[in-house]
Amino acid sequence: MPDPYLLTPGPLTTSATVKAAMLHDWGSRDAAFIAATASVRDRLVRLAGAEETHTCVLMQGSGTFVVEAMIGSLVPPSGTLLVLVNGAYGRRMVTIAERLGRAAAVLEWPEDKAVDAAAVATRLAGDPAISHVAVVQCETTSGLLNPLDDIAAVCAEQRRPLLIDAMSAFGALPLDARATPFMAVAASSNKCLEGVPGLGFAIVRCDALAAAAGNAPSLSLDLYDQWRGFEDNGQWRFTPPTHVLMALAQALDEHAAEGGTAGRGVRYRRNLDILVSGMAQLGFAPLLAPDLQAPIIVTFRMPTDPAFLFERFYAGLSQRGYVIYPGKLTVADSFRIGCIGRIGEAEMHGALAAIAEVMGELGVASGAPPRLEAAK
Amino acid sequence: MPDPYLLTPGPLTTSATVKAAMLHDWGSRDAAFIAATASVRDRLVRLAGAEETHTCVLMQGSGTFVVEAMIGSLVPPSGTLLVLVNGAYGRRMVTIAERLGRAAAVLEWPEDKAVDAAAVATRLAGDPAISHVAVVQCETTSGLLNPLDDIAAVCAEQRRPLLIDAMSAFGALPLDARATPFMAVAASSNKCLEGVPGLGFAIVRCDALAAAAGNAPSLSLDLYDQWRGFEDNGQWRFTPPTHVLMALAQALDEHAAEGGTAGRGVRYRRNLDILVSGMAQLGFAPLLAPDLQAPIIVTFRMPTDPAFLFERFYAGLSQRGYVIYPGKLTVADSFRIGCIGRIGEAEMHGALAAIAEVMGELGVASGAPPRLEAAK
Repeated sequence: MPDPYLLTPGPLTTSATVKAAMLHDWGSRDAAFIAATASVRDRLVRLAGAEETHTCVLMQGSGTFVVEAMIGSLVPPSGTLLVLVNGAYGRRMVTIAERLGRAAAVLEWPEDKAVDAAAVATRLAGDPAISHVAVVQCETTSGLLNPLDDIAAVCAEQRRPLLIDAMSAFGALPLDARATPFMAVAASSNKCLEGVPGLGFAIVRCDALAAAAGNAPSLSLDLYDQWRGFEDNGQWRFTPPTHVLMALAQALDEHAAEGGTAGRGVRYRRNLDILVSGMAQLGFAPLLAPDLQAPIIVTFRMPTDPAFLFERFYAGLSQRGYVIYPGKLTVADSFRIGCIGRIGEAEMHGALAAIAEVMGELGVASGAPPRLEAAK
Repeated sequence: MPDPYLLTPGPLTTSATVKAAMLHDWGSRDAAFIAATASVRDRLVRLAGAEETHTCVLMQGSGTFVVEAMIGSLVPPSGTLLVLVNGAYGRRMVTIAERLGRAAAVLEWPEDKAVDAAAVATRLAGDPAISHVAVVQCETTSGLLNPLDDIAAVCAEQRRPLLIDAMSAFGALPLDARATPFMAVAASSNKCLEGVPGLGFAIVRCDALAAAAGNAPSLSLDLYDQWRGFEDNGQWRFTPPTHVLMALAQALDEHAAEGGTAGRGVRYRRNLDILVSGMAQLGFAPLLAPDLQAPIIVTFRMPTDPAFLFERFYAGLSQRGYVIYPGKLTVADSFRIGCIGRIGEAEMHGALAAIAEVMGELGVASGAPPRLEAAK
């Protein structure tokens, strides 16, 4: 039986060639591996339009590890981080700051509403203690795209450096340091870049990184020390996930061959359109207004039909080779279907056909959720 | 050209079947992946003879990440960690404790001398502030095996919990919680277990872990939170390195098929004997006395022959398919050759033949190092 398609926020379906790149062993100080590390760093910086101003620091572990490294290394002990929260990943940055002993301030919106840049401006103007701002570009809690350009403009105007968690967006949604000022952006190998999981990276302004020595309350998760290691001899300070890095190098080749961020974004947008319109025909309704929906993952509101039991729905789809994802909302019962990874039109149509089949099996007539009250 | 053999402290040469286990994609919440995670945790605890008393917490990242997680999670902010140092990995634990804001005390020996358990007993008896003790089982700085049983007995007698960095020894050198009392041992996927790099693990007394809530000054590197995640729903808290985990599951099958820790230890011991006697015939001398030498990696003292240029020696061996490792000693110029990973007699003999060839090419008559002074 072939592997199921992973319609999730990650780990995702990757190409056979990306996985085949892991069929070798590399020494961590060998020339070929050092060259691959340098090339990956260089290509990631270029993807962010940041080669004049920023550098890339790779970090072992999951995406959360590099977000923690970004906050711990760039917000000094005396700083205060304002976190813009409209979902679980924003909240996680608050938790990280608190764990690291950094003062955290919070501006919060409902999970189905975008961050409001005007409110950020007001808060920054009125609170001089805030030294840094952090935001999630695409909140996969809901699938919402925050207005990053507006937020970055406000932060620049108020002279507060911006830290971005672009985990689920990097490589598919535009981000250009020349147009969108940021101090650092964190992302990972296994989302829109379509590598395998096991490493993250931060793209950080060189001047900010040079000033970050001694900030991090961790040896492992110190972006400054890790950067010095790469710059000194091209090697990782601590054992690198060699196979994961080589898979990412291959994934970046395939990303470029698809037309880079623009090309990949087009495919994901097409996947999204097929998914949302197909689901609508089955009665399902997405949580978000179309203008807030990123082409990454879609939250569908739970149907009212009592025959719709999520665990049976999930299992039926899984048996048919499509893995979906539970909801993570605090405000409403929901489930999620991703449209990223090495999947295209055929797989999205296949998933929709499987969904219709499982609905039939469960006796679910329609995926319609409860009506929204007019007041909402 | 086939992959070179990695005669290093890791990443190592792994089997083709371990690498082939990465040719699939898994969802992190899928039943098969959850079952593999549980099985790996269970098998690792059993390898330490610890199934009655301890549990296994897997951790994303390199070995240093899980050592940091062990120290940060198990030594409370009010504790003092006595680190027994005779090499770079012991010193690294001191650095970690200091970064995490934990008081660290240090007992230090030269890099070619074992930790002296009697001195540890004296220190513990005289310093009631010390709450925990940490030691490296096999210091790959030199290749030295510390007397873990004696150290553990002293710590137990003095009622100080012992934290062990067994990174380069776990799975090849005996460790049994029923005979050698310890609070926690940390190791990784890519050393003697012969998986690929990208995850570590700690085997921790259940009572100590249950008491560790809130200790860690990190969200990512918190063994308590990570453990609760595994226990609550079998899943990893944050994106797991799925491919690395499945490679480790396969590697553990192959470890068991070889006769477990005992069987693997026999192969590595044979590799060591071939290496040391073959190198002696070429004039090379190991740093350590035979009774201190672990069957993991051997430090050779640098030859006096001026024709012996390490970088050319390294490159010549690399071209012939054998990757060795530079020295890490502070006391003497040296290089290292490992005898672990998926290598056996044929590869050790092949490496020796390549070494003889490269010596001929460089015009090195003998690998003999400077004579040791009689006083030493």
